[in-house]
Amino acid sequence: MHTLVIRNVRPMGGEATSVMIREGRIAGYGQEVEGGAETLDGGGAIMIPGLVEAHTHMDKTLLGMGWYRNEVGPRLIDKIENERMQRRVLGIDPARQSARQAVLAASLGTTHIRTHVDVDTEVGVAGIEGVLETRERYRDMIDIELVAFPQSGMLIRPGTVELMDRALQLGAQVVGGLDPAAIDRDPKGHLDAVFGLAERHGVPVDIHLHEPAELGAFSMELIIERTKALGLQGKVTISHAFCLGMADQDYVAALIDALAEARIHILTTAPASRPAPAVKRLVEAGIVVAAGTDGVRDTWGPYNNPDMLERAVLVGLRNNLRRDDEVALALDTCTHGGARMMGLDDYGLNTGDRADLVLVEGETLADAVVSRRPRRMVLKGGKVIARDGVALFEAP
Amino acid sequence: MHTLVIRNVRPMGGEATSVMIREGRIAGYGQEVEGGAETLDGGGAIMIPGLVEAHTHMDKTLLGMGWYRNEVGPRLIDKIENERMQRRVLGIDPARQSARQAVLAASLGTTHIRTHVDVDTEVGVAGIEGVLETRERYRDMIDIELVAFPQSGMLIRPGTVELMDRALQLGAQVVGGLDPAAIDRDPKGHLDAVFGLAERHGVPVDIHLHEPAELGAFSMELIIERTKALGLQGKVTISHAFCLGMADQDYVAALIDALAEARIHILTTAPASRPAPAVKRLVEAGIVVAAGTDGVRDTWGPYNNPDMLERAVLVGLRNNLRRDDEVALALDTCTHGGARMMGLDDYGLNTGDRADLVLVEGETLADAVVSRRPRRMVLKGGKVIARDGVALFEAP
Repeated sequence: MHTLVIRNVRPMGGEATSVMIREGRIAGYGQEVEGGAETLDGGGAIMIPGLVEAHTHMDKTLLGMGWYRNEVGPRLIDKIENERMQRRVLGIDPARQSARQAVLAASLGTTHIRTHVDVDTEVGVAGIEGVLETRERYRDMIDIELVAFPQSGMLIRPGTVELMDRALQLGAQVVGGLDPAAIDRDPKGHLDAVFGLAERHGVPVDIHLHEPAELGAFSMELIIERTKALGLQGKVTISHAFCLGMADQDYVAALIDALAEARIHILTTAPASRPAPAVKRLVEAGIVVAAGTDGVRDTWGPYNNPDMLERAVLVGLRNNLRRDDEVALALDTCTHGGARMMGLDDYGLNTGDRADLVLVEGETLADAVVSRRPRRMVLKGGKVIARDGVALFEAP
Repeated sequence: MHTLVIRNVRPMGGEATSVMIREGRIAGYGQEVEGGAETLDGGGAIMIPGLVEAHTHMDKTLLGMGWYRNEVGPRLIDKIENERMQRRVLGIDPARQSARQAVLAASLGTTHIRTHVDVDTEVGVAGIEGVLETRERYRDMIDIELVAFPQSGMLIRPGTVELMDRALQLGAQVVGGLDPAAIDRDPKGHLDAVFGLAERHGVPVDIHLHEPAELGAFSMELIIERTKALGLQGKVTISHAFCLGMADQDYVAALIDALAEARIHILTTAPASRPAPAVKRLVEAGIVVAAGTDGVRDTWGPYNNPDMLERAVLVGLRNNLRRDDEVALALDTCTHGGARMMGLDDYGLNTGDRADLVLVEGETLADAVVSRRPRRMVLKGGKVIARDGVALFEAP
């Protein structure tokens, strides 16, 4: 039975110890090294569990393609329509592009990704098929969960619901949704379709909700109602949830209570230019808060990169988390928060957990986050898959 | 007469050319190389003018010191008092610390810094003296402008005005101020003292204004009144100016008009967790907008680093600047905006301008900003002062 021991690592920035890994799982800490065990030197690095990218769009990143000159209009619909057009013009191949992002993310210590994949009447399920190919090809490097995502609307583009159904048959594990009022112009109809798919396929739900203030809050109420009616507590995520950043604090407090009661998770990208959910307040209310990058260098915008330590910094900056304990909270949205949202079993640094691990230099945990140095080592299922910032898998 | 030619550079991401440098200035582009000229290979890098850090606090960064565990309280005054205490406890040496930040900033392509240096009844002018030492020591590497900054208040701590006066005699080039209502509890008194010092010493003004909404707007009005009364148009900067992010849009519009008329500059750090001035709107109104890092890894917070390309990204994220022309605008706050704020003559890429230059890889200008690769070469006054991300000057 193969045993790997990494000496001189500091779990979560604590005391240096050795970690023993067997059959892809953490077998214990600080034990005597058995004869025949392979040993690696952790060099005093901080060890954290694998980073969790809980919201991205791997099928449409432009990584590795020529620079896309962004001249898009200001409205949400401008960006959606521009993207559908550019998909053809630029030749954005979902399998190739998702593979590029997967390898880059793995080099940065991400061991789990939830990705929303476009399903619409133009692309059909080709995006789903492409990302499924990547999921299979890189299964030893990273776990990828697919959300069937009706980016262009569902009811306003007849045939989309059937395509979503097909995507879930093919292997998408989550049903997505998008701005029930603002895009489909029919909040009840949109959400009934989304939750209908979830019920039929027995899958979780993850809905993009950019709708502002009281409008978004109304859609949120409809989501909460359906979550409870269908017994989907703990299985529903609302992504973005900008309405939780609205001015009416009494209304926000009521929504937070209702979300907590329905065990609905909140995903944030910590956007600097939009109202956003207050991470600390949600966590204190017992809500699972996960973090994601959103699109990485795509037709929507150029800034994002898939480094989840950088995302933790952005969560910290957006939420004014300055103290060391608060920086740890920001990091938690990029580790345990995402893991709980995705329902990952055996995630973490306890004995028995899967050995999905990141070694990164830092004097303290907060230092490791803010300094974002190249990851010294990344392990997936107990195997080293990246060293010194370079993945051991090839990108296309 | 020494001539340096850098071949194969792309000014602002345009066509490749060569740049000739003579007597510390740009002598021309695309010319024949004269016999005896030293030549360097730009490798096709994008060439931009030196980055301008228009607001930081070099005297109190903790760079290179042990990790500071931040457990500070939530109020502004908690942070101010904690910092005064930690200055003694940690032994924060202004000369050493400002030198560390100067060298790091230079390695990242910053060629000009405006730094606010604490003046109070505990530290006296020791901070000013320390940063003046750094300014002198690294004068061939970077230009440093000192603002005498009454961080702990001026009127509430008798003797501070006299120390500010002394700081300006010693060589501080700008008079600072801070939240006239919120800290000194006497907006008229505080601003009369600040502008009195400016008049007496014939120096520009740069006032930290964190005060929120209508309170900040009132202080802003008092600043505008004094700027006009004393004929200081073009010489006054308001840093932070959070009140310009307030909800009352009519009031904001009136303030913008008044600021533009008084030619008052706005400095932003593009804070993600606070209301903030809308950069594009201010620029369109003809106001000079500069960007700064604020404190770099200090007792206030751990996140900031002095990379002004990262700051341009944060300006872009905060202001939702996604298009390529908008990314260029974000960069402009970190180059020309800062230069205009600081009244730098001969700044830019025109023939005759000082050869303060940064070479950075990128397919396009926007790519160079968002990718933030190590700076290939940094020149100050025509001399190479950093290569491949490493400064040629030693930090203490």
